[in-house]
Amino acid sequence: MTIPTVRAAVMDGPGAMRLQDFPEPTVPADAALIDVSLCGICGTDKHIYKDEVKSHPLGVPTKFPIIPGHEIVGTIERIGAKAAARMSLTGGTLRAGDRVVPVVDLRCEECVGCKTHPGWPSCERGETYGWGISCRDAPHLFGGFAEKMYVLPQTKLAKVPDSVPDQAAVFAEVLAVGYTSVARMLHSLQLSGDGSSYVGDVVVQGSGPLALAHVIAAKIAGAHRVVVVGMPEYRTKFMGQFGVDLSLDATKLTREERTERVLHGLESGGADVVFECTGDPSVVEEGLSYLKPFGYYLVAGIYSDSGKTTTLNVQKYVSGRYATIVGNGGQTELSYAKALGMMESFAHTIPFEEVVTHRFPLDRHREAMETAISEQSMKVAFEP
Amino acid sequence: MTIPTVRAAVMDGPGAMRLQDFPEPTVPADAALIDVSLCGICGTDKHIYKDEVKSHPLGVPTKFPIIPGHEIVGTIERIGAKAAARMSLTGGTLRAGDRVVPVVDLRCEECVGCKTHPGWPSCERGETYGWGISCRDAPHLFGGFAEKMYVLPQTKLAKVPDSVPDQAAVFAEVLAVGYTSVARMLHSLQLSGDGSSYVGDVVVQGSGPLALAHVIAAKIAGAHRVVVVGMPEYRTKFMGQFGVDLSLDATKLTREERTERVLHGLESGGADVVFECTGDPSVVEEGLSYLKPFGYYLVAGIYSDSGKTTTLNVQKYVSGRYATIVGNGGQTELSYAKALGMMESFAHTIPFEEVVTHRFPLDRHREAMETAISEQSMKVAFEP
Amino acid sequence: MTIPTVRAAVMDGPGAMRLQDFPEPTVPADAALIDVSLCGICGTDKHIYKDEVKSHPLGVPTKFPIIPGHEIVGTIERIGAKAAARMSLTGGTLRAGDRVVPVVDLRCEECVGCKTHPGWPSCERGETYGWGISCRDAPHLFGGFAEKMYVLPQTKLAKVPDSVPDQAAVFAEVLAVGYTSVARMLHSLQLSGDGSSYVGDVVVQGSGPLALAHVIAAKIAGAHRVVVVGMPEYRTKFMGQFGVDLSLDATKLTREERTERVLHGLESGGADVVFECTGDPSVVEEGLSYLKPFGYYLVAGIYSDSGKTTTLNVQKYVSGRYATIVGNGGQTELSYAKALGMMESFAHTIPFEEVVTHRFPLDRHREAMETAISEQSMKVAFEP
Amino acid sequence: MTIPTVRAAVMDGPGAMRLQDFPEPTVPADAALIDVSLCGICGTDKHIYKDEVKSHPLGVPTKFPIIPGHEIVGTIERIGAKAAARMSLTGGTLRAGDRVVPVVDLRCEECVGCKTHPGWPSCERGETYGWGISCRDAPHLFGGFAEKMYVLPQTKLAKVPDSVPDQAAVFAEVLAVGYTSVARMLHSLQLSGDGSSYVGDVVVQGSGPLALAHVIAAKIAGAHRVVVVGMPEYRTKFMGQFGVDLSLDATKLTREERTERVLHGLESGGADVVFECTGDPSVVEEGLSYLKPFGYYLVAGIYSDSGKTTTLNVQKYVSGRYATIVGNGGQTELSYAKALGMMESFAHTIPFEEVVTHRFPLDRHREAMETAISEQSMKVAFEP
Repeated sequence: MTIPTVRAAVMDGPGAMRLQDFPEPTVPADAALIDVSLCGICGTDKHIYKDEVKSHPLGVPTKFPIIPGHEIVGTIERIGAKAAARMSLTGGTLRAGDRVVPVVDLRCEECVGCKTHPGWPSCERGETYGWGISCRDAPHLFGGFAEKMYVLPQTKLAKVPDSVPDQAAVFAEVLAVGYTSVARMLHSLQLSGDGSSYVGDVVVQGSGPLALAHVIAAKIAGAHRVVVVGMPEYRTKFMGQFGVDLSLDATKLTREERTERVLHGLESGGADVVFECTGDPSVVEEGLSYLKPFGYYLVAGIYSDSGKTTTLNVQKYVSGRYATIVGNGGQTELSYAKALGMMESFAHTIPFEEVVTHRFPLDRHREAMETAISEQSMKVAFEP
Repeated sequence: MTIPTVRAAVMDGPGAMRLQDFPEPTVPADAALIDVSLCGICGTDKHIYKDEVKSHPLGVPTKFPIIPGHEIVGTIERIGAKAAARMSLTGGTLRAGDRVVPVVDLRCEECVGCKTHPGWPSCERGETYGWGISCRDAPHLFGGFAEKMYVLPQTKLAKVPDSVPDQAAVFAEVLAVGYTSVARMLHSLQLSGDGSSYVGDVVVQGSGPLALAHVIAAKIAGAHRVVVVGMPEYRTKFMGQFGVDLSLDATKLTREERTERVLHGLESGGADVVFECTGDPSVVEEGLSYLKPFGYYLVAGIYSDSGKTTTLNVQKYVSGRYATIVGNGGQTELSYAKALGMMESFAHTIPFEEVVTHRFPLDRHREAMETAISEQSMKVAFEP
Repeated sequence: MTIPTVRAAVMDGPGAMRLQDFPEPTVPADAALIDVSLCGICGTDKHIYKDEVKSHPLGVPTKFPIIPGHEIVGTIERIGAKAAARMSLTGGTLRAGDRVVPVVDLRCEECVGCKTHPGWPSCERGETYGWGISCRDAPHLFGGFAEKMYVLPQTKLAKVPDSVPDQAAVFAEVLAVGYTSVARMLHSLQLSGDGSSYVGDVVVQGSGPLALAHVIAAKIAGAHRVVVVGMPEYRTKFMGQFGVDLSLDATKLTREERTERVLHGLESGGADVVFECTGDPSVVEEGLSYLKPFGYYLVAGIYSDSGKTTTLNVQKYVSGRYATIVGNGGQTELSYAKALGMMESFAHTIPFEEVVTHRFPLDRHREAMETAISEQSMKVAFEP
Repeated sequence: MTIPTVRAAVMDGPGAMRLQDFPEPTVPADAALIDVSLCGICGTDKHIYKDEVKSHPLGVPTKFPIIPGHEIVGTIERIGAKAAARMSLTGGTLRAGDRVVPVVDLRCEECVGCKTHPGWPSCERGETYGWGISCRDAPHLFGGFAEKMYVLPQTKLAKVPDSVPDQAAVFAEVLAVGYTSVARMLHSLQLSGDGSSYVGDVVVQGSGPLALAHVIAAKIAGAHRVVVVGMPEYRTKFMGQFGVDLSLDATKLTREERTERVLHGLESGGADVVFECTGDPSVVEEGLSYLKPFGYYLVAGIYSDSGKTTTLNVQKYVSGRYATIVGNGGQTELSYAKALGMMESFAHTIPFEEVVTHRFPLDRHREAMETAISEQSMKVAFEP
C-alpha cells in the first residue's frame, strides 16, 4: 500500500525554493486538511525571498525551511469532529466540502499577548502559517504554496459565501488588513462639531495589493476622493478600475511635485487620512505632510523589520498639526469575515475578481516569484 | 416707484395655509438674500399642518404665523460684504450666483447650549428657519416656501458642488441627518476583537425621505445588508432603487411576522444597527428586538414631541443585550457639507436625483401638502 | 477511609435554603479547587430568593437546585497542571496558595456569542457560577456559599495583589461592573470642541453595593460632582465615606423634589452621566430627565428580567436631547483585573475595606439573606 | 489730567527683555481689561528667550516686540456690555470683579481652520496672547507679564471657582493641555474584551510643569502606576507630592538603564500610555519603546518647531506593536473649564497650590527668567 503524497514549494532560505513531496497527513479529531484552490504571493513572501527581513512583528524570525504562503482559499477535505465545532470563525459547524479562508496568525490563548488582546494577532509565540511555522516537522504542510494544507487545532476558518468566487476570496486575508486599518481609523476619529466621522479625502501611498485593499476598504467606508501615489505604471493604471480619482507615478515626480499634485487632486487642502502601504520607512514624513490638521496616518505596509529607520520633524507634522498615527501590524480574526462580507455586498460596484492578475502552478514557482517581484502584476497566485 | 414683492406660502396655524406677498427686503452688510430653487416638505411640516406637534426639540414651540420650509436649495441673489466672509460653512468667500443650501438651525453662540456644543443645533433660543422664526416681523422671509429667503447674519451656507443638481441638493438637509446618525453610531461602536467598526447589517424602520436618507448614509458607510420596514407600498417599492435588500410593508404583517421576515432577510441572526425613522414612539421596542446583542439603535425620526410615550422591557432589550440607544435630534452644521460631498462622490451608484418625486408651484400649496401627506410620494418639493 | 466533605448552602427554589454536605471532589489536570474566604450576597441572589426573577440576561433561567454566590475571593487549594497555565486571567502561571477572584460568567468559546464578542459574558450557554450551574450533578460545588468551590476548565482566575485584603477583593466582581460601565461610557463619549471626555457631573440612582461600585468607578475616572438618589437612610449615609457630594433619600421626596435637589446639587444644569443601579425599570425616565443635552445614561442595575416595563417619552428625553443610553448587562473578563488594580492604586483615598459591613457563617444563611434584604447593610458576605 | 499707565515686561527679541509703561486703554463694549494677579512663565517663553524657536504650531512666527505670558489669572477690572454676554467660556454673564483665566489662543471663526475644528486652537491667523500678538500697536497689552491685560472681543474667559486660589488657577492653562491629552487618549482607546478604557500604567517623559500637568490629569483619570523620567533632581523629587510611583533622573542613567528601571517600576511589562513632555524630539523612540503592544504615545511637549528631527524604527515601535501616536499641540477652549473643575473637585488629594514655587515682581524679570530656565523650580510666575 502506498501513502499518497502532497506536493509543496519549500523555501530553505532567501532565494532558495524547490518542490518537495510530503506524505499526506492523517487528520485527528481536533484538526483539518484543506485542498488549496489558490494561494497569493504576499509582499512578505517577496521580502523573505529577497532577504530583506530582519524580523517579523513582535521580533519573530522566519522559521526556515518553510512552505510559504498565507493568503489561502481552499476546500475542506477532511475535518475532525472537535474541529468541526470549534474552527468556525463566526459560529456554526464546518464540514468537508466547505470553502474556507484560514486565519493565518495563530493564537495560543495562554500568553499575556493573547489574554490581553482577544482576537488580535498578538500571540507571543508568533506562529503564522507560511513563514512562521517550519515544515521540518510532521505533518509539515503549514503553508499555502502546496496542494494541501494542514490546519492546526487552534486555527479559525472563515467560510466563503456562495456568491464569492475563489479568485476574490484569495484576497480576503489582504482585504482584512485594509478593513482593520479603516476600522481602527474610524474608531479613533473624533466626532466633533465637524461631524467628521466618515473617511473623507484619502491618500494611499503604494499601489500594490495592500494599497488596493486599502483603496477598496476606504471606498466602501464612504471615502470622498482617493489619490494613489505609487509605482510602476502597470499598477497605478490598474487602480483606475477601483474608483481611484487620481493615480500618480511616484518615480516620475519629485517630492515637491507629488505633494503639489496630491493636494491639487484632493481639492480640499489636504487628506483626512493617509494609508502607508509601501513598506518603505522613508515615505512616512512625506505621507504625513499630505494631511490636513487633525488628520490620521495609518502605517499598514511597514510590516517586517528591515532595520531601516524614518527621519521626521515631529513638531511640524505631528504635534503642531494634531495628527494621529496608528500602527497597524495585521488584522483581527473577525475582519476576515468582514472582508468576505464586503465581497458579497459590493460585488456589483467593485471588481474583486480582477485582483488576481497572474496564476501559476507550483512547478513554475521561480516564474511566479519573479512576476510578483517585477510589479508588472497586481496579485500573483499559485493554483496548486 | 414700486417696491418689488416676494410671494410666500404662510401658515397661520395647523391646517391654515395661504399665499402672501411681502416687500422684498434690503440686504445689509451682514445678511443675504437667496432665490429659492426648490424647497422640500419635511415630515415636521406635515406634523405641524396636521396639529400633531406639542413642541419641537428642547421644548421650542412653533412660532405661528410662519413661512414653512427648511429643506432649501437656491442661488445667492445678494450678499453683504461681511456675510460673504462669514457665512461660508467650510471657509472661503461667497458671492452672488453661488448655489447654496442653508444650515437651518441657527446658533446664537452665546447661550450655554451653543458654548458647550459647538456646531450642533443646541441653541437654547431654538431659532430654525421655517417653523422656528415667525414671519410676522420684518424682513419676514424666514422660510423656504417662498420665492426668496432672507438669510440672517448668524446663518451658515453650504456651497453646492457644480456636479450636484438642485433636485439632489434639496435633499442635503435630510441626508445630513442620516450622515450625523451614522457618524454618531460609528463613533460609539466599540472596536473589539470582532473588528466590528463598520455598519454591518442594518434595519431601517420607516420608508419616507428620512428613512431613505438613512438607507443612503448606511450604504455609503459600508452597510452589508439593509432591510426596510415601512409603508405604504409606493414607498417600500421605491426603496428598491437604493440598494435595499428587502423591503417589508409593515401594515400587511403582524409584529411576529415582521420580526421573523426581518431576521430571515438579514441572514445573520439580527441587525447590528436599527435606525428609527418613523416618528412613532410605539415602534421602539420592536426595533430594539431586531438587534443582535451589542447592537445600536438610533432614534432619528421621533423629532417633535407629540406627547406619546414608549413602553419597553429595558432588561430584555437594552441591559440584558448590551444595546446602545442613541438619540439623534438633528444634524451638525458641517454634516451639510458632508451630505453634498456624498452626492458628488457617489452619483454613479446612488440615484440622488430621483428622490424628489413631485414638484409644485406655491399656489398649489394645498395639493402639495396633501401629496406629501398621502405618502404616495417620496420627497415633495415646492418650486417657487 | 472516609471521604472529606464540603459544606454548602443550597437553594432548592425561591426562599428555600438549607445546608448540605458534598463529597470533596478530586481535581483533574484542567480544573482547580478554591478554599472560599468570603462570598458576597448579590442583588441577583436576593431577587432569586424573593422569586422576582423571570429570567437572567439572554433569557437564561435559574438552574435550581443551586449553591448561590458569585462574588468570591478565596485561595487556590489545588490546581491541575493544565489549569495552572490556562486559568490566569492576565497571563502567567497560577499555583496553590494564590489568592484569586474567579470570573463568574463562563465562555464556551464555540457559540456565536463567544466568537463574536471575545471577553464579554456573551456565551449563549449562559453558564454562571451561583445561579447558572446546578449543584445537582457532580462535582456539585459551583457556587460561593460554600467552604470550597470547584473551578471548571474554561474559568479565568484573577490574582489578588498582595496589598489588597480579602474584604476588599470580595467586592472585585461588583466593582468590575462599575469599571465596565464607566469604560463603555468613556468610550462612547464624543470628544468635541467641548473636550468633554472625562466623566463630568454624575448621578447614581440607587445606593446599594452596585451603586457604590459605580460611585467608586466614576470618582476614579475623574468625576466632578457625584449625587446619589437612593434609600434607605442607612445606605445614603454610608455613601458619604466615598466622596459623594450629595446623597438623597428617594423615599422622602417626590419626583419633582428629587429632580430639583439633584439639579441644584450638581450646580451645572444637569448630569453628564447617570448610572441606573436600582434594578427598578420605573426609574428610567426620571434618570434620563436629570441629564444635560448630549448626556449618557447607563443601565447597569436592571440585570434580571422581572417582566416589568418602562414607560418613557422618547422625544423629550432621548432624541430631543441627543441622549445616549447604554445597556450594561455585566462586565468583561479583564475588568476584574482592572477592579483589583484600582483597589491597589487608590487604597489611600478610597476605603475599599469598609464595603463589607456584615459577615455570617454558612449556618446563619437565613439571617444573612435577611440582613442583605433589609438594606440595613452595604455588602453582606458569607465567611465559610 | 494724566493718563494712568500700565507697566509691562517687553521682549524685543530673543534674550532682550525690558520694562515699559503703556497708557491704560479704554474699554469698548466688546472688550475687557483684566488686572493680572499671576502669570506663569511657560516653556515656550523660555525657548523664545533662548532663541530656540523656528516657528510655533501651524508655522506662526513670534510677533516681536511682545509682552510675553499666556498663563494668566486675574480679576476683571472693566468689561463692556457686549463682552459681558459673549466672553463667558461656558455661558452666563461676566462682570467686573470676577476672577478669570483667559483662553489664550484666539479664533477668528472665519478661516477654514476655525470653521472645521470648532473649539480647537486651529485658527490660521495664529493669534495667541503673549508671543502671537505684537505689543507694537495699541492697545498694546496683549500679554500677561504686565499689570493689566487687554482682552480682545473674540476672547473667551473661564471663571475661576471660588474655592480655587489664584496660585492654583494660574496653572489652569497648562493643566488644560494635560486634560486635552488625556481626553484625546481616552477617546482613541479601543474598548475591546480587555476593557482597557482607563489610563492604566503611565510614563511621563519630562518633569517640568507640563509633565506635572500630565501626571495630575492622568492620576485624576484613574492611572494605575505613574513613572516619571526627567531632570534635574529638584524636579524629579518635587513630583513625589503628586502621587508619582517612581521618578528617575534621566541624566544619571543610560537609555538601557532607564528602560530597565521604567519597566521594572511599572511591574506590568510596559506602559499603556506615555506622555512626551520634554520638548526634545530625540526622546520619541525611547518613549515609544516603553509601551506595551497596543499602547498610546502622546506628543504634548514638542510644541514649537526647533528644526530638530526624530529618527525612529517605525516597524519595531509603531506598526509592529500596533502603537497609536497622538500629536497634541494645545488644548480645547472648554478644557480650561475642565482644568478649573479638577482643581475644585480634587483639592483634597492633589496639592495644586504647591505648583508655583517662585514668584517675582515685573522688575525682576531677568531673575525670573533665569530661575525658570535653571529648572531649580517648578512653575515660576510673575506677580505684577
